[in-house]
This record gives sequence, C-alpha cells and structure tokens, in this order.
Amino acid sequence: MITITAFRWVPPFARGLVRDLRVRWALEEAGIPYETRLIERGEDQQSAEHRARQPFGQVPAFEEDGLVLFESRAIVLHIGERSETLLPRDAGARSRAAQWVFAALSSIEPHLMNVVTAEVFAAGEEWARLRRDGARAFATQRLEALADALGDKPYLDGDRFTAGDLMMTTVLRIVPELVRRPNLEAYVERCTGRPAFGRALAAQFSDFRPDEAA
Amino acid sequence: MITITAFRWVPPFARGLVRDLRVRWALEEAGIPYETRLIERGEDQQSAEHRARQPFGQVPAFEEDGLVLFESRAIVLHIGERSETLLPRDAGARSRAAQWVFAALSSIEPHLMNVVTAEVFAAGEEWARLRRDGARAFATQRLEALADALGDKPYLDGDRFTAGDLMMTTVLRIVPELVRRPNLEAYVERCTGRPAFGRALAAQFSDFRPDEAA
Repeated sequence: MITITAFRWVPPFARGLVRDLRVRWALEEAGIPYETRLIERGEDQQSAEHRARQPFGQVPAFEEDGLVLFESRAIVLHIGERSETLLPRDAGARSRAAQWVFAALSSIEPHLMNVVTAEVFAAGEEWARLRRDGARAFATQRLEALADALGDKPYLDGDRFTAGDLMMTTVLRIVPELVRRPNLEAYVERCTGRPAFGRALAAQFSDFRPDEAA
Repeated sequence: MITITAFRWVPPFARGLVRDLRVRWALEEAGIPYETRLIERGEDQQSAEHRARQPFGQVPAFEEDGLVLFESRAIVLHIGERSETLLPRDAGARSRAAQWVFAALSSIEPHLMNVVTAEVFAAGEEWARLRRDGARAFATQRLEALADALGDKPYLDGDRFTAGDLMMTTVLRIVPELVRRPNLEAYVERCTGRPAFGRALAAQFSDFRPDEAA
C-alpha cells in the first residue's frame, strides 16, 4: 500500500495548494489507492524521522514497500510509470510529457512563487514592496509565453492530458489572478474539471483538522 | 544525430554555467556524440524559429529525428534512458535518481538563484540590497539540509553517481562560495572531477566566440 505524508492542518490560504495534492491527483488518475500519514507543521517537520523521508522537512513524502521518495514531481513521474494517462508509452510523447512537468516547475513556478513571496510571505517587508511590480511583470511575461505555446490546443502536448498538464495546472493555481489569457484560463478549467482532480482536492481538504480544534 | 542549441557568446561570469552544460555532460557520460546549433543572445532568442523549439527563448533545446525537447532536466532524463550511468535500471534506484534531479532544481536552485538575482542581476536596486541577507540565509539553510542528507556518502543515493548528482553539481556551481560544508565541497569536486564533466565544460567554452570578436 502507498502512504503519502501530508499536513494535518494548514492556514486557509494554503488549502488546496499544498503539494501532496499533486500526488493525490496523480494516484486518482492512475486509479491507485493510498493511505495518508498526517504530520503537524513545525515540530513534526523537523523530526529526525520525517527528515529521513524528506531532507527539507516538507511534504509530501511517498512510501511503498520500502521505497521512500520525496519531491512531488519525482513522485508524480514515478506514479506515471504505471499510468498511460500520465505518461504515454511512446518514447517521444513520454519525454515531452516530462518536459512539461519540468517547464511547470522550473520555468513557471519559481516566478509565481516570487510574486507570492513578495505579496504574501514577505508582505510587510520593504524589499518586498519594492520587488512586487518587477516580480509580477516577469511572471506575466512567462505566462504570456506559456499561453502562446498552448495556443488553441486543449492540452500542452496536443489532444491528450498528461502528467505535464497535471503539474502545470497545480502551478497555475498558485496565483490564479495572474492567469489572464482566455486560452490559459480555459485550460486550467479543463484540467481541474477532471473527476480525478475533484477527488484529490476533496481528499486533501477532508484530511485537515477542523479549525475549531486547531 | 543529436543537435543541442547553445549560445555563441555569453558574458564571462556566465561561462561554464549556461545550462547546455548539463546536456553536454549527460551526453558525455552516455557516450553519445552531438552537434551544436549556436544562436546569439537577444534577437535569435526571440525568433519564431527558436520559440518553436524553446517557448521561453532560452537554451538549451534538444533535437533528434524530429523530436524537439526543451528544459535541460527533461533532456537529461531523456538521455538517461540510454545510459545506466545516469539512470540505473532498478525501478526504485531510477526513481530516486529522478528525485535528486528534481530536488536540485526545485529545492535548491531557486534559492541559489534568489541570491544571484539579489547580488548580481539586480545588484543596483534597493529591493535587492534589502533582500540579500534573507536570501543568503534561506539558501544556506537549504544547503545545510542537503549536506546532512549527503552525510558521508560519496553520492546522493549512495555509492553510484547518477543523473541526480549531475544536476545537483551544476546547481551547486551557481554560488560556489555558499557551499561551505566539507562533505558538500568534496562532493562537488568528486563530481566535477569526472572526465565527462571536463569534456563537457571544454566543449561549452570552445563554442564561445572569442571576446575580441564580440
């Protein structure tokens, strides 16, 4: 049985964005059941036991039959080996799917995270106030290039949803108000409209402890 | 024949760091020959022809028999399919190698790039002056966690060099002065001491146009 490590509670703004969502979604697409190991933010994250699973103290970690993996993207590709929905069999199409996983995480996500850092995590700091417009402008430029690359295709590699779309969608949801191009907005709706996404999102939310007990 | 797109000229501080190095190194480890397509920074990067290969206008792009890939990490994993040095055959070891590729690019590189952005690319700006210490502190914390995870193993997954070490090494070379833990310094030396790395680095340098002709 697969076990995913996730948080037992996060602040409301982070719900639906914590990265175990990617792994849950991939498992739902692949039709593979899983259990969760829920940890508390803070002390549990720093424990030697958790660091052995995830050196940076984050979530998710993935465990199955003695194999321990961290990094949501590595886990998604690992799950993809068992699902043609996520990773097509054709070698070229597989590599292109992996390419979009990487593009989401390297060419898009860091620039959206720069916006979130300037506007949320470091909101009270002077550097963040000065940085904000530049971070938005750069992120927008990257999203424009992405919208151009998507064009009028339903998915990034054409007619088929792949792990690349799964990952890109979870990245684009970080700062939804920056995703202003109609084709990109329709793309996010198309991907999040998949039943597997709905099940994964519901599962993440249902694992959070109710606020009143926090 | 494989063709790699690379820059014909970059400023001295970027030489040996441009990301086609990763792909050249992977091809050298795999023993696969390649050709280069050299483009100029600026206009060539924005051309429709190059954008069709690389939507964000960067390098490298990879072409072989009609397959076009961008994102150095996707290309390295694609090459890894043909090289047991890069990606072991055992499924668990493969996934762990991929995990370290992702860790390098998602858990380490963005934080080192924050330092480079604050100290080099945006050096004259007020936000960068205010941001600098915080960026260094966070990056250092990540490198400490990485050094702990490496421990006294020669490579990240144990006794064998993989694509994960290739990628982590190219990331650690971005801000070498931050890599202060002895085991991590020895690790970078061990990886860059590989003959394949030396050949890749020499090939990247030899493709740059001499400065006097710039």
